[in-house]
This record gives sequence, structure tokens and C-alpha cells, in this order.
Amino acid sequence: MPDLPDFYDVVIIGGGPAGLAAALYAARGLHRTLIIEKAAPGGKINQTDRVDDYPGHYQGTPGPVLGKAMWDQAAKFGAETVIAEVTGLEPHGGVKTVHTTKGDYQARTVILAAGGEPRRLGIPGEAALLGKGVFVGRVEDPAALSGKAVAVIGGGDSALTEALRLAEHGAQVTVVHRRSDLRAIEVVQDAAHSNGNIAFLLNTVAEAVLGEGGVTGLRVRNLSANATETLDVAAVSVKVGFAPNTALLDGLVALDTEGRITTDEWLTTAAPGVFVAGDVRADAAQLVIAAGGDGATAAIAADHYLSNPE
Amino acid sequence: MPDLPDFYDVVIIGGGPAGLAAALYAARGLHRTLIIEKAAPGGKINQTDRVDDYPGHYQGTPGPVLGKAMWDQAAKFGAETVIAEVTGLEPHGGVKTVHTTKGDYQARTVILAAGGEPRRLGIPGEAALLGKGVFVGRVEDPAALSGKAVAVIGGGDSALTEALRLAEHGAQVTVVHRRSDLRAIEVVQDAAHSNGNIAFLLNTVAEAVLGEGGVTGLRVRNLSANATETLDVAAVSVKVGFAPNTALLDGLVALDTEGRITTDEWLTTAAPGVFVAGDVRADAAQLVIAAGGDGATAAIAADHYLSNPE
Repeated sequence: MPDLPDFYDVVIIGGGPAGLAAALYAARGLHRTLIIEKAAPGGKINQTDRVDDYPGHYQGTPGPVLGKAMWDQAAKFGAETVIAEVTGLEPHGGVKTVHTTKGDYQARTVILAAGGEPRRLGIPGEAALLGKGVFVGRVEDPAALSGKAVAVIGGGDSALTEALRLAEHGAQVTVVHRRSDLRAIEVVQDAAHSNGNIAFLLNTVAEAVLGEGGVTGLRVRNLSANATETLDVAAVSVKVGFAPNTALLDGLVALDTEGRITTDEWLTTAAPGVFVAGDVRADAAQLVIAAGGDGATAAIAADHYLSNPE
Repeated sequence: MPDLPDFYDVVIIGGGPAGLAAALYAARGLHRTLIIEKAAPGGKINQTDRVDDYPGHYQGTPGPVLGKAMWDQAAKFGAETVIAEVTGLEPHGGVKTVHTTKGDYQARTVILAAGGEPRRLGIPGEAALLGKGVFVGRVEDPAALSGKAVAVIGGGDSALTEALRLAEHGAQVTVVHRRSDLRAIEVVQDAAHSNGNIAFLLNTVAEAVLGEGGVTGLRVRNLSANATETLDVAAVSVKVGFAPNTALLDGLVALDTEGRITTDEWLTTAAPGVFVAGDVRADAAQLVIAAGGDGATAAIAADHYLSNPE
């Protein structure tokens, strides 16, 4: 195989826990390995104040600290890193090409561990008021919402966790969820239900964010009564799941109803030598430990492929 | 469901990384959870001086420290623990019974994360000289073998890692492996091949350990030449893989050629509510991170089952 500066055995797209675990094991197996991350070491883990459920971290660890440790550890085993956005992938053949904003890389195998982005509602006012009272990631400065009415849209772990966080900072939170039952784990549901600053509007969808230059309200529709009302809120936090970054593999993979990639146990795709890991795939637990396990599995699959290419 | 002291939502058999991750997430989901471990917190991880490949642990962490941290963390989330040996399992029905040396426990779900034990050769002299020059686990006091000839039997990671460790302590090591190629990862193979204190006998099987009250030699057969010879060694380290502890699930699961349990992606068995995780299952990567990911997956599967029992 060519010994070129931009030629790798394993190129990993995404520098979160899945990608970094994959990089660690690929590099440990003496494969020349490159991690391409578009933002910062650790990926989405950087948005978590404290990871308290990663096994072995009894006291919890700040997300950015854990992400940086994983990044440095992969580098310690020999993985190379670049901060760049991947703009295209030519996945077929024995040598694949990964196009990025910092140039092209050649790879014998590619592991897509690109995670996802927060999903948007696509309702009027959402885009126009983004950052002006509408939040799709986490609210950076929750103290600024103290004493204000805030709508959190969604019924999963991330929605209720954000509702709790904003309530703790003094916001009056209304959780708006389209179904009759919440999807968050029980411990989070219990905490939210017992918090006096959190109310619930179930069977209810958001239809429009109101306001000019700032949020003044949220129009919602109760699906049981088929009636609309307007909530007087100063901010709207959209926490309705996430959209997996699977576009690079269009046509190579099947997607489940949530848009995540369905795979076999070895995380393969229709392109030999291209694998997926972490939150991009169906049934991903969206836990650091599970993403890491996925990354290790993908690295082993890539190693097998490199030893026995089709 | 009955509120009895010995009644649990989730009973986990095995307190290694797979079982402890399962316990953490089961307990975090507010399920009453019990970990049953027969030896010490952390399971086999206790036999590892330093775990250097668990993502996020840049400097590496002593195995017993990591195991204890995982154990304490599961307990912090509410999991209960008991040190006992499981002697039987009644896996059918909505309430399963787990028999142990400390009494019986009732469980709505059971996760088998029991790992395995070092495999033995079953050749003459092996059992009689166990602990008297024959080692199946790791050699506790490698310095005692300094300057002596030692045979290490096996060709995988654990065999070559042990060969390197003994060679570093001054032993003259011969690696005896039945196949023509080694199975260890390249970085370990390279280190072993470049170590002047390690020789290799490939295509060779051990036939008998010789000695009375202590090891004086190892009779081996070269499979290519079909010829025997005797190695003058003072110790024999048997590192030929491990035997998964699957007996509790006999009849409920299918096994692969290595005796490990084949499962679907949700780690189920033929008994609803009984799951497997970690090194007991086929294709397990035998890595801490992968075992932990497995445990998290099994905990999620158990949670789904508890919410929607068949």
C-alpha cells in the first residue's frame, strides 16, 4: 500500500466517545489511524457538565475533561487527529477518499462515528428566533432565564433534564410533549414531577414560536381537544431528539424510523471496509460506555477487514 | 410484585465490567438491583496490573482500582451487592430463582455476566502439578522464575503478554503454539519477536507435563514432523483461552465453537427476562469498554422487558 502522508489504514469520522474508542483500538493494533472531528475533542460530550454514569468514574467527570482524556489517549496510542469538516466520502473500492475542509485523505477503511445534531421542529418562528430565545442545544446561560416562563418541548431524557436544569435556575418551566406518556427514565421523570417549577402539557404539539426579535409566546395545540392556546413564554428550548449525521452514507445503509443506520453486529455497511459506530446507528443507547463499546467493535471489524480484504 | 427482602427487579450474576455497567444502568433506572459476585469487586479485571486501554484513562488505571470504582459507582446508584457463588438458576416464568451459597434470590430479570475461567489443556501432569510449576492464571511471582526455562502454551494476546512479562523478569521463555500463526495483536507479536529471551515452537502441542512434586520438563509434539521432544523447563504457563461460564443457561442458549453464547442484538435468551452480557457471549471483544457497553445494553433490554413483560 502507498506510503503517502494522507494515506491511512483507518479514517474515523467523528471525535466523540465512539470515534475515540475506535481510534484507540485501531492505533493499538498498529493501523495508521486518523480521527477527523469538526468541532472539539470529545464531540457532544463537551456539552455535558458532568458525566456521572461512565463506569469507573465514581465522582463523575466533566464532559470536556473526559473527552480530552479520550482524545489524548487515542493520540498516545498513535492515532493522528485533525479538526476539519468532512464534505464528502467516496466509499467504494479498496482505497476510499474522504473529502474535508482541510483537504482529502485516502483510507483503506472508514468508520463513521459522526453522532448527530439536535433535531428541529420546523415550525414558524423557530429559525428566525434561533439564539434570540429559541434554543436547540442546551441553554448556555440558564441564570438569565430566572423568574421567566420557559417552554421545553420534548418528553425524553434530554428534555426533562433541561427542564430540571432551567427550573433549578429559577425558571417557570412548561414541558410540552406530543404524546400522553413521557419517554425519560423514571428517575428523571420522578424528579421533574416533584419539582414545583415544572408543569406538563401532554398530548400537545408546538405550532409556532411568536415574537419579533425575541420570543413572546408559543402557540400550542392540544391533540385530544384539537384546541390551540398561546403560552406566554420568554424562551423555548427544543429538545425533540437528534438527527443522526448519516448523509455521507446515503445509499449504503438502511435507516430506521428515527433516521438511524440499521447494521449487523459487526457494524458493516454495503460498502466493504466502511463501518458505523455510536449514535448514528439504530438502537444506539446514547451512552458514553455504549458508544465506546461500539467504537471498539468497529475497530475490531476494521482490523479483520484489513487482514482479509474482500 | 412482592416487596420481600430477597426480591429484585434485576439480579446480575457476575461483578466484572459487564455486570457492573449493567447494575449501574439498572439501578439508575430505579430498578431494585442485586449484583452477585463470587470473588472480588471487578471480577477478572482484578488480575490486570494496569488497564491502559479503557477510554478516558490516559495514564492507565490499576485493575483493582478500576474494578472497585465501578463497583462503588453501581452501589452509589442504588445497586445492592453480595459476594456469593451462584449454584443454580430457575430461569422460567415471571419470577426467576437464583440459588447461591448465601441463599436464594427472586428476580424478575436475570443478566448473566459471569465471564469465564482460564481453559486447561487436560494433559497428564497438568492437574497434579498445578501450583507446583504449572500455572493457568497469571504467574503471581514472576521474579522466582528469573534465570529459569519456562514454557508458555498458547498463541493469543494473553499468552504472548505473559511470555513478555516472564521474559522481562529474566526467564528464558519458549512459546508453544499448536498453529503456524500467532493470534495475538501485532504490537504484542512484534514485541515478543524482538525479545531475545523468547523463542517460538509453532505447529507444536503440549502432550505431558513431567515431574514429581515440581515441573522438570514438558513433552511436546511437532505436528508437521509428528515428532516428540522434551523441553527442560522448570515451569509451564497455560494460556490457551478461557472457558465461558455458561452452565447456568444450559438449554436456553446456543453456543459457538468456542463455547460462547450466541445472541441477538438485545442479548436475550430462550427464557424471557434472562439476558447475557460480556465475555460469556460470542464475538465478545474481551475489552473492558466492550463489556461495559454490553452491560448497558443488557440493562436497557431488561428495562424494556420490565416495562412490557411477555
